[in-house]
Amino acid sequence: MTKFKKILVTGFDKSALDEDTWTRINKLTNSISFKPSKEADCLFSRFNRVDKVLIDSLPNLKYIGLLATGTGTVDLIHAKKKNITVCNIPGYATESVAEWVFGVILEHLHDLERAKYVARNGDFSGSGFSTMEILGKKFGVIGLGRIGKRVAEIAAGFGAKVCYWSRNRKKEMENKGISYEPLDALISTCDFISLHLLYNKDTADILSEKLINSLKKGAIVINVAPMELVNIPALKKRLKQNDITFILDHPDEMNPIDVKQLSRYKNCIIYPPIGYVSKESRVLKQNIFISNLENFLGNKPINKVN
Amino acid sequence: MTKFKKILVTGFDKSALDEDTWTRINKLTNSISFKPSKEADCLFSRFNRVDKVLIDSLPNLKYIGLLATGTGTVDLIHAKKKNITVCNIPGYATESVAEWVFGVILEHLHDLERAKYVARNGDFSGSGFSTMEILGKKFGVIGLGRIGKRVAEIAAGFGAKVCYWSRNRKKEMENKGISYEPLDALISTCDFISLHLLYNKDTADILSEKLINSLKKGAIVINVAPMELVNIPALKKRLKQNDITFILDHPDEMNPIDVKQLSRYKNCIIYPPIGYVSKESRVLKQNIFISNLENFLGNKPINKVN
Repeated sequence: MTKFKKILVTGFDKSALDEDTWTRINKLTNSISFKPSKEADCLFSRFNRVDKVLIDSLPNLKYIGLLATGTGTVDLIHAKKKNITVCNIPGYATESVAEWVFGVILEHLHDLERAKYVARNGDFSGSGFSTMEILGKKFGVIGLGRIGKRVAEIAAGFGAKVCYWSRNRKKEMENKGISYEPLDALISTCDFISLHLLYNKDTADILSEKLINSLKKGAIVINVAPMELVNIPALKKRLKQNDITFILDHPDEMNPIDVKQLSRYKNCIIYPPIGYVSKESRVLKQNIFISNLENFLGNKPINKVN
Repeated sequence: MTKFKKILVTGFDKSALDEDTWTRINKLTNSISFKPSKEADCLFSRFNRVDKVLIDSLPNLKYIGLLATGTGTVDLIHAKKKNITVCNIPGYATESVAEWVFGVILEHLHDLERAKYVARNGDFSGSGFSTMEILGKKFGVIGLGRIGKRVAEIAAGFGAKVCYWSRNRKKEMENKGISYEPLDALISTCDFISLHLLYNKDTADILSEKLINSLKKGAIVINVAPMELVNIPALKKRLKQNDITFILDHPDEMNPIDVKQLSRYKNCIIYPPIGYVSKESRVLKQNIFISNLENFLGNKPINKVN
């Protein structure tokens, strides 16, 4: 296979890739369609669901190219059964997301939105502002993949006492002073908790009702991973008690009713999924996306996830 | 001297100190006045000017207690001439301010105010958001006192290439990989610049017209120090070119016309002076403030600045 016949693009539009990238993609296919087309042998998707029905509707499909890291949106097993290769883009946004985590923590701690607002209205008294330092606080990272590791390193730079939980022990991080803790101990003792697990059957609901109830008073939890990791009814109850703060992005992947209900709590801060949007990550992402296509066409697929 | 006769409080009100702190201060004086009083032998001030006229209006004055680090507001020479001891509170807010610097940098880079706004309005598309990573960028710290040092360390945690300029070389920081650069080289090559100098005759206007003009395109400059360090007319001109970003706090100490003019530029972000307001720093500040009083009364003044 040297070229695709037809690429079907779903879940994003032209603006998601630079013009130069489209030019490079055009060289790898006879045509590109943004409307449903049965002839497609290649499917692009991002955060949209690629389920059995969609896969079965494309009888010539050979390849699914994800313009994202997360693979939870694709029925990987069904794709494998039909001999369709699925490739994702791992790690392209590691730094962007890790830095974003500290952005949203500090924005919250220092009440920066309100600070900008009062300053714009000429109030420079600073009255009513108070913050908490990261230095010396206990900072827990759940999941020590690429992003989790960088979050742990940056937290250490702030002088936090950093600990982690991960399915596997990471000795190289422990040697840097990042200590391992069992999940329940981490959750009940940390001042800051940042979630960095992939979503799969083992991690679904991992932040269970019991664990949410055990969160330390005043804890600040950041979830840049899918909200499927979190028991949402328990989270709502705990938010109502008004003794924790929960910060999330990726609301676009959530049940809109949950988003609406969570957004009623002042201590639940909801962002659009913008953690990964650095210029540096955009360049890297597109390069990997194309490289995945080229490698598949050359019969040596990389970043295959099924 | 075991007690003051009368403390005159200027520049702040009761809410600036905790009740417990007032109780402790009450034990060190016969009375406290918030209104002008000629009998005062002790003067409290914060960011307000304590000039020759005010000093001369208090013939019994022995002690000026600053509820702040900066001493530029007090006529120290005149106070010394009249044998008045002036004490400040150094370093109490080091961590708070250093963390705040990264808060305002990341808030700006990730456009968090707008992100919260669009999310509140149900727009989770993330469209139009883009950011720049700190990792790998050149981060210059001007002035390597307590706060500057912490800013340099945290920037290193983010993976920036950190350099500094300071009147004196700081070998212990250079050993940690923070490299020295001449001021003009630092200013013309850094992506981020954070100013941490005290204001005095040597540092006034140190960010001169020439240096402001030499700032790299796209540079982000943060000034948590007094704006007297900056040539404001040159800054306005450069902001008008719209190729740098300038972030400042302490507008309360500035000429209101300058504040108004600077606030017209979207690339000038003005905050109230809230960098120092952590709970941790508030506790430490009050303890040092009282300790300064006690030590002066015990004839062994500490944190004397004149």
